[in-house]
Amino acid sequence: MVKLIDHRILLDLVEHIFLKIGCPQSQAKIGANTLVSADLRGVDSHGVARLSGYIRLWEANRINPTPSICVVHETPSTAVVDGDAGLGLVVAPFAMDIAIKKAESVGTGWVSVKNSNHFGIAACHAMRALDKDMIGIAMTNASALVAPTFSKERMLGTNPICVAVPAGNEAPFVADLATTTAANGKLEILQRKGTDAPNGWIQDFDGTATNNPHALKDGGALLPLGGDRDHGSHKGYALGSIVDIFSGVLSGANFGPWVPPFPAYVPMPENQPGQGIGHFFGAMRIDAFRDGKEFKRDMDLWIRRFKDAEPINTDQPVLIPGEPERLMHEIRIKEGIPLLSAVYDDIKLIAEKFNFKF
Amino acid sequence: MVKLIDHRILLDLVEHIFLKIGCPQSQAKIGANTLVSADLRGVDSHGVARLSGYIRLWEANRINPTPSICVVHETPSTAVVDGDAGLGLVVAPFAMDIAIKKAESVGTGWVSVKNSNHFGIAACHAMRALDKDMIGIAMTNASALVAPTFSKERMLGTNPICVAVPAGNEAPFVADLATTTAANGKLEILQRKGTDAPNGWIQDFDGTATNNPHALKDGGALLPLGGDRDHGSHKGYALGSIVDIFSGVLSGANFGPWVPPFPAYVPMPENQPGQGIGHFFGAMRIDAFRDGKEFKRDMDLWIRRFKDAEPINTDQPVLIPGEPERLMHEIRIKEGIPLLSAVYDDIKLIAEKFNFKF
Repeated sequence: MVKLIDHRILLDLVEHIFLKIGCPQSQAKIGANTLVSADLRGVDSHGVARLSGYIRLWEANRINPTPSICVVHETPSTAVVDGDAGLGLVVAPFAMDIAIKKAESVGTGWVSVKNSNHFGIAACHAMRALDKDMIGIAMTNASALVAPTFSKERMLGTNPICVAVPAGNEAPFVADLATTTAANGKLEILQRKGTDAPNGWIQDFDGTATNNPHALKDGGALLPLGGDRDHGSHKGYALGSIVDIFSGVLSGANFGPWVPPFPAYVPMPENQPGQGIGHFFGAMRIDAFRDGKEFKRDMDLWIRRFKDAEPINTDQPVLIPGEPERLMHEIRIKEGIPLLSAVYDDIKLIAEKFNFKF
Repeated sequence: MVKLIDHRILLDLVEHIFLKIGCPQSQAKIGANTLVSADLRGVDSHGVARLSGYIRLWEANRINPTPSICVVHETPSTAVVDGDAGLGLVVAPFAMDIAIKKAESVGTGWVSVKNSNHFGIAACHAMRALDKDMIGIAMTNASALVAPTFSKERMLGTNPICVAVPAGNEAPFVADLATTTAANGKLEILQRKGTDAPNGWIQDFDGTATNNPHALKDGGALLPLGGDRDHGSHKGYALGSIVDIFSGVLSGANFGPWVPPFPAYVPMPENQPGQGIGHFFGAMRIDAFRDGKEFKRDMDLWIRRFKDAEPINTDQPVLIPGEPERLMHEIRIKEGIPLLSAVYDDIKLIAEKFNFKF
C-alpha cells in the first residue's frame, strides 16, 4: 500500500510542475524544496500530498505563478512583505531571509506578510536562521477550522508556531506546533482508519464534545490546545489568536474567519478585510544577546539535561522538540519517502498531466 | 471570611515595606505597583498574597534591595539586563522600558534578563507597551514544577507568556497564560476547597495521572498545557521550553531544573549554570509594520468579530483574552480588593513587623 520514492525524484517532479504552471526557475526550486522538506521531516500532511491542492488553487486563479514579492513598509528591524498572491512556499523563504538580513544589521528582524498562500511547514522557514547562528521564528494564519472557547463557530486556523534554536554539539531545538489539540492531518489519519478521536480534539456543529473524526465535515470544529475550558482551551485560543494578529492584522492580510480556504472549491469568505493569508517571521542573532560559544554551551547543557530527565517508562525517554522529525529526516534522506497509494496515484496523475516521466 | 481593602492602602503598605527592607523610593513605588496590579486584575495568587514570600527571600539574602540594574550587552534592537538580584517586580519594568526605547528607535526591542527574581504578573510588564502604540511581550522562567511529556521529573516552571496588543475603540487584547494546563494558584484553590483536580492537571511522583490536588507536595508535578501526549502535552512542553530558553539560556540566567525556587526555605539547586531567574521582553511598534490607524481599525474589527462568534450557550459569550481581568480591574479599583482572611492576617502581621498602621 506504500511506495518508497527517493526525495530527489519528488524534488524534480515538484520543480517541473511549478515551472510548468509558470513559476520562474529560482522560485520553482525554492517552492519544491519547501514542499518536500515536509515529507522528509515526516509531516506528510504538508508535503507532496498537498501538491494537487496547490495546482487547483493555481487553476482557480488564486495563485500567481510570477509574483513580484516586495517589501511595502520597513524600519531597521521590521518589514511588511506583499506576497503578490504567490505560492506561500516561495513567499515565506523570501520574507524569512529579510528577517535574517535585518538581524544581521540590528540584532533582530521581524517580518509580517500579507497577500500570500499556504506556506507548507513552518519549521522549514524558521530553520533558515540556524546556519546563521540565529533563533528563527515562523508562524502563519490559516482558514478557520477552530472554535474559540465557548463558541460553536469556526474562527481560527490551526495557526502553527515554530521556534528553531541553534545548539553546539547537540542538534538544534525545533518546536513546530499547531495551536490546536491535534492538527487536521492527525484527524485525517483517524478518518482513514475509522477509529474514534480522543476527547478534546473536536466538537459537533452545535458545540457538543464528540469523538467522531468526521464531525468537521458536518459543521463541527477543531478545538484549541487544551480541548475545553477546564483543561486550558482558552490558552490555546489565545495562542492561535496571537498568531492570527501577528500574521494577519499586523500585515494587512485577512484574519479570523476571513482567511482564504486551502481547498480551491470552497468559496472565498465575503467582505474580506485584507489580502490573502498572512505569515509572521522573526530572526534573533544569538550574539545580539550573548557570546555565541557560551550560549551554545548552555543550550547543549539544556538539551542533555532534558534528554536525561527521569522517564516514566524507561523505554520512552524524554524527547527534545524537533528530535523525532530530525531522526525521520535522516531515515528518509537515505531510504526514500513512503507515499500512501492514494497520494502516489494523485501525484502520478499530476505528473502525467504535466508531462513528467515519473 | 473576606475583607475588602482599598487598593491604595495596599499600595502604601507594600511601598512602605519595600522602603523598610532598603529599596530606594522609586523602586519601592514601582515594585508596589507591580505587585498590587495582580490583585487589581484578579490574579490573587500573584498579588499581596506573595508579599511575605518576597520578605522571606530578602531575609534569606536572596533579594538585593539596592540593585544596580544594568545593561551588560546590546545592539540597536536587543539588550541583556543584569538584575543584580533585585526584586523582579522592579527589574522587569526596567527591562521592558529598554525594549520600548529600542522599539522607538529601530521598530522593535527585545530584552533578555538574568540575575532576577519573581516578577509578579507578566501582563503588568507587557502592558507598558500599550500606551506607546506598541505590542508588548513578557515571559519568565520559574522554578521547576512541571514534568515534560514522558517524564516524572519536574523540569520546567509554569513559564507564562503575555502578549498585549493595542486596539482603537475596543479595549486592548491581553493574553497572559501559564504554559501548563492550570497554574499553581488554581491548584491551591482546589486544595483549600478539598475538591479533586480535573484530569490532565497533575501527575503523581511516579508519573501516574491523578486527581489529588495535593500530589505536588508528595513529589508529583504539574502537567504542560495539553495534559497528556494524546491531548498535545508535547506542545505545552515545547512552549514552556521556548520561554525557558528565551528567558534563561539567552540571558545567562538559570534554566530548567536549576531555576531558584520562590519559597526561601527550599534549598537552591546545586551546580547552577547561570545567575538568578530569567525573563524575556519584547516591544514592537505598530507603525513599524503598518499605519497605526489602519491597524487599530482592523484590530477593533478582530475583537468585535470574535465577541460576536456564535456561542454554544447564549448566556456565555465568547471572551477576548484579557477581558475578564480588565472587568475585574474596573470593579476592584472602585470596590476594593477582597482578601481571604489567611492573606489578610499574613499581611497584617507583616505590617506590624514593619510598623505600618494597617
